[in-house]
Amino acid sequence: MGTAFNATTDGALRSWVDVPDGSDFPIQNMPLGIIARACESPRVGVAIGDSVLDLAVVAEAGLLDDALPGARAILTCGTLNAFLARGRAAWSAVRARLSMLLAAGNEELRGVPGLTERALYPRTQARMHLPFEVGDYVDFYSSIEHATNLGRLFRPGAEPLMPNYRHIPIGYHGRSSTIVVSGTPIVRPNGQRRPDPQQPPLFGPSGALDIELEVGFVTGPGNALGMPILSSSAREHIYGMVLVNDWSARDIQAWEYQPLGPFLGKSFATSISPWVVSLDALEPFRVEGPRQEPEPLPYLRTSGAWNYAISLRVELQSAQMARSGHAPLTLSQPSFQGMYWNMAQQLAHATANGAVVRPGDLFASGTVSEAKPNFGSLIELTWRGTHPIVLPDGTQRVFLEDGDTVRLLGHAGGDGVPRIGFGEVSGRIVEARV
Amino acid sequence: MGTAFNATTDGALRSWVDVPDGSDFPIQNMPLGIIARACESPRVGVAIGDSVLDLAVVAEAGLLDDALPGARAILTCGTLNAFLARGRAAWSAVRARLSMLLAAGNEELRGVPGLTERALYPRTQARMHLPFEVGDYVDFYSSIEHATNLGRLFRPGAEPLMPNYRHIPIGYHGRSSTIVVSGTPIVRPNGQRRPDPQQPPLFGPSGALDIELEVGFVTGPGNALGMPILSSSAREHIYGMVLVNDWSARDIQAWEYQPLGPFLGKSFATSISPWVVSLDALEPFRVEGPRQEPEPLPYLRTSGAWNYAISLRVELQSAQMARSGHAPLTLSQPSFQGMYWNMAQQLAHATANGAVVRPGDLFASGTVSEAKPNFGSLIELTWRGTHPIVLPDGTQRVFLEDGDTVRLLGHAGGDGVPRIGFGEVSGRIVEARV
Repeated sequence: MGTAFNATTDGALRSWVDVPDGSDFPIQNMPLGIIARACESPRVGVAIGDSVLDLAVVAEAGLLDDALPGARAILTCGTLNAFLARGRAAWSAVRARLSMLLAAGNEELRGVPGLTERALYPRTQARMHLPFEVGDYVDFYSSIEHATNLGRLFRPGAEPLMPNYRHIPIGYHGRSSTIVVSGTPIVRPNGQRRPDPQQPPLFGPSGALDIELEVGFVTGPGNALGMPILSSSAREHIYGMVLVNDWSARDIQAWEYQPLGPFLGKSFATSISPWVVSLDALEPFRVEGPRQEPEPLPYLRTSGAWNYAISLRVELQSAQMARSGHAPLTLSQPSFQGMYWNMAQQLAHATANGAVVRPGDLFASGTVSEAKPNFGSLIELTWRGTHPIVLPDGTQRVFLEDGDTVRLLGHAGGDGVPRIGFGEVSGRIVEARV
Repeated sequence: MGTAFNATTDGALRSWVDVPDGSDFPIQNMPLGIIARACESPRVGVAIGDSVLDLAVVAEAGLLDDALPGARAILTCGTLNAFLARGRAAWSAVRARLSMLLAAGNEELRGVPGLTERALYPRTQARMHLPFEVGDYVDFYSSIEHATNLGRLFRPGAEPLMPNYRHIPIGYHGRSSTIVVSGTPIVRPNGQRRPDPQQPPLFGPSGALDIELEVGFVTGPGNALGMPILSSSAREHIYGMVLVNDWSARDIQAWEYQPLGPFLGKSFATSISPWVVSLDALEPFRVEGPRQEPEPLPYLRTSGAWNYAISLRVELQSAQMARSGHAPLTLSQPSFQGMYWNMAQQLAHATANGAVVRPGDLFASGTVSEAKPNFGSLIELTWRGTHPIVLPDGTQRVFLEDGDTVRLLGHAGGDGVPRIGFGEVSGRIVEARV
């Protein structure tokens, strides 16, 4: 299936737009996001090097009509949903066209007087909006290392994995209204906790605010009620991926979650990165996933490589570190490539009962953890507080403190092949409201 | 708080539109829904007796502008969301105005040549659409009788209620994309089950398809991220209520739900009634809820009566019963008035962590059960299959069979006071797709 996209993943292709070495956004990437400058209304843009190209302006000049009928309306939209709804043929056509327009030697954009001046500007000037309106948000639990760690932490002495884990891509629905774009401050949630089971529960600021390093995928056209999306069709329905920080209040979650699962311990905020990296751009980085034993039921079988070799990183910088000039501390660097359940399996499972998927639905992977110390959450990194993290300024962390900034980063490639980066998703913790 | 609405709940008020005895929709009710006739586009309508009044037509005649600035745009919309977003002052103004327009003796509608002919027509001619677009869907677990029954069924010998139950209005997020309007056929979901723990799991049609009789509330303007809705402000944010059938596949749910809660066992379909009954209409039926012991934490305390005396009913008619002329069988008739957690508490809890509520969010009560035999689900009514239900034609039911039609009904009042009815939410089970 990947052969159709070779033209746009050609590692030798260069852009006439300057792309610094090590940039997340060479011409082989071209992630889409929702951008605005000054008092402009939000519209679709593409990241290229340290710049953004305003696709509303390009579309208004008529340069995208052949690739995307109705391009003006779709790309002047303040969300990607209308574009996502158009499906894979449109996605690939737009990608091929942008690749042509941005390729070294192409003069079409520069041939329209004043166009590049209006359409191409430094990425630092772009205010990034939530890239798509999320209909339903599902969070999976697809890292077997993470699930095993949490089983060990919460049910010591017992079998760490539930009996269903190797049969079902376990997941639950999260709250779509509180999905926010990178940079949105994260207000420490208040909530009900019961630190001492012999005492009544308390209400107040969470004392166990945690990170969850995840990768999410966003869907395209979707299905009709009652009509499952087969794993073999998943590629037609998945546009691309973002980084996700599924902030978690472990103390709220621990007290509330039985018997119906996580609720307020997760629903206060979920941050996503502003640039959506397409499956097409990630095509060269498809890898086989881990062997699944026992073999999944037929509806969960996939053919072809459905894991992705994406390197992830979690960084933490406290307010004091920032003031004293300490660079952010890297806490963990797991890879996404070993996830037990892949995206095609997740989508097939989530719709096996006929549930509807719509353009802009978000399916997150669950916390990405590998072997120690490459864990994607503080509860694993500190082993439930028994091994605090020591920051460069000598202070310690078990969970997040007010003023802490967390950045998640991710990329595929580099080292001689084009780097397909996600940019970052960041958030700073601000104190709870009284 | 109720005094402001007395004019529209005055039991003596009559309409010039014929309202048959026992109708769910006297002038004191005036529920809103989304209606369309023939090839019309969906628009807002109000039910009155056996008729509907097309509010788009009324608004276009300019008769609602004083009550609702922008009435034309809001009421020609195919969902109630824009109206819901306007908030309580607008809701009450529209209600007062409609009450005036429909009151016996009022000639304003009939004074516009041709208007009533276009705007008022038999309810049987109205195709009902989903009344609002659901942003996030939360399902609570607020009947202590239901929670106790499920605890007894699934954890025999143990304390039936979890330690958190009397402290927290337990809930979880459901899937908003598969919320459907009454009358939508319910395709039996396929899914993964493990009937024999010694054997591998199976995939196929659920063999344990169940009803959940619930009442849901729909929200208005909503809050900003990080700003909780206090229980004392809940009335400003709750427009009204619908009946909800949260169809459940018990076998899928039982195998999937640990540790993150229900997912595919619930996400295949949730049916709601097409008419939204306002809190204003239900004002005369507010009653005190059960005593809560221990007293909830301060953020969950409410003042005034926040339970509602709504009589509910579950009816079942199999395909064979319909063919042989058997009327639907009433399975259960619980009241909503004894729910342990009320709507103000649910809304305050769901936003205590700063989570955002938007216009059109749906919060369902969870299964409404009272003392035996007034249970709101088959798993309780048949006590997990040990006491099958015998249908009038002699066949038995443990869970739903293909061809079964389930109707949920609800009303407050009657017996000398105006009957504020919900109409019904119905669904017929159709066979699973292969």
